[in-house]
Amino acid sequence: MSGRRIAGPEIEKLIQLLARVPGLGPRSARRAALQMIKKKDQLMGPLAEAMALVHERVTTCSTCGNADTSDPCAICSDPRRQTGTVIVVEEVADLWALERAAAMPNVLYHVLGGVLSPLDGIGPDDLSIAALVDRVHAGGISELILAVNATVEGQTTAHYITDRLADYDVAVTRLAHGVPVGGELDYLDDGTLAAALKSRTKF
Amino acid sequence: MSGRRIAGPEIEKLIQLLARVPGLGPRSARRAALQMIKKKDQLMGPLAEAMALVHERVTTCSTCGNADTSDPCAICSDPRRQTGTVIVVEEVADLWALERAAAMPNVLYHVLGGVLSPLDGIGPDDLSIAALVDRVHAGGISELILAVNATVEGQTTAHYITDRLADYDVAVTRLAHGVPVGGELDYLDDGTLAAALKSRTKF
Ligand SMILES: [Zn+2]
Ligand SMILES: [Zn+2]
Repeated sequence: MSGRRIAGPEIEKLIQLLARVPGLGPRSARRAALQMIKKKDQLMGPLAEAMALVHERVTTCSTCGNADTSDPCAICSDPRRQTGTVIVVEEVADLWALERAAAMPNVLYHVLGGVLSPLDGIGPDDLSIAALVDRVHAGGISELILAVNATVEGQTTAHYITDRLADYDVAVTRLAHGVPVGGELDYLDDGTLAAALKSRTKF
Repeated sequence: MSGRRIAGPEIEKLIQLLARVPGLGPRSARRAALQMIKKKDQLMGPLAEAMALVHERVTTCSTCGNADTSDPCAICSDPRRQTGTVIVVEEVADLWALERAAAMPNVLYHVLGGVLSPLDGIGPDDLSIAALVDRVHAGGISELILAVNATVEGQTTAHYITDRLADYDVAVTRLAHGVPVGGELDYLDDGTLAAALKSRTKF
């Protein structure tokens, strides 16, 4: 707006807030606001309502840490998923990404809420690691897939969790390293290339 | 989501609606929803509120056709803008784009709400042309800048308006044709090139 008001404070405020939504910048926030005004009753009204409802009802699943409007969440309360496999992720976004990929449809999850990072003062008590141990302790889990990021902190966290679960009869696995599907070799870092070579499979 | 629910119906509905916002697709709608859940009270709450407020209050300015929460709109009620120049545009989006460019800061606007298009059954009565003539008739307007699109319909509409205002003492101008700033010549159509040559200016 170049510092000038082109609309009343309510619309300016809406544009400002929309510009903070990931995927929208200041320019697309204006376009989005206009489109909402144009589709006032088909888009803006229902969206405001849906947002208010989620804002009011969203909670953290006390079992797995997923964000949902019910506790336990839709995933934890799905009877088809009681297969004994739990994928451990850092963030809710990772859980959603894995669900979207739908490579293992009937698993459960455990959201850590971050990774161990001594430099940032993040220790085991800041993550839901005790809750994970409790879940394993309660029984029924045969495999934990550690789907943490392939970063130093992610791997440190994976090792820490493995140590904590050493006394339990649970298989702890991690995601394979390798060439991303569609990835070009000459853009990959040496570590990924080395891992992909080491874990090569028969053609 | 591949047809599977990863969250309760409220969150799924929010994602669906967000995916219809221009600038966001299904993928970024999920990312946006997650970010909103993460910034529940800093982003999702205020955004839901701002949207509900605009939804409740937004109206069409009875003077110029702009979308705003007050009537007359923020532009029409700005005393600095009573300079006698009115820019005529097709849509509110064009008004906002011109305001953003801020090339003529103290002008007023008139939003037609479309263009004449006999094939689509859109005649003068479907646009706010009578209201424009009334504004000119009421006096105080010395120049009308027809900033309609450089399409056949836009130009037809511009000619029609010029005819309707033939009896009034108002200068009717239109935007210059030419090479867009930053535009590359070999990507421009012949009409634009011809117009840019015809309207060439001294270097
Ligand atoms: Zn859950
Ligand atoms: Zn107005």
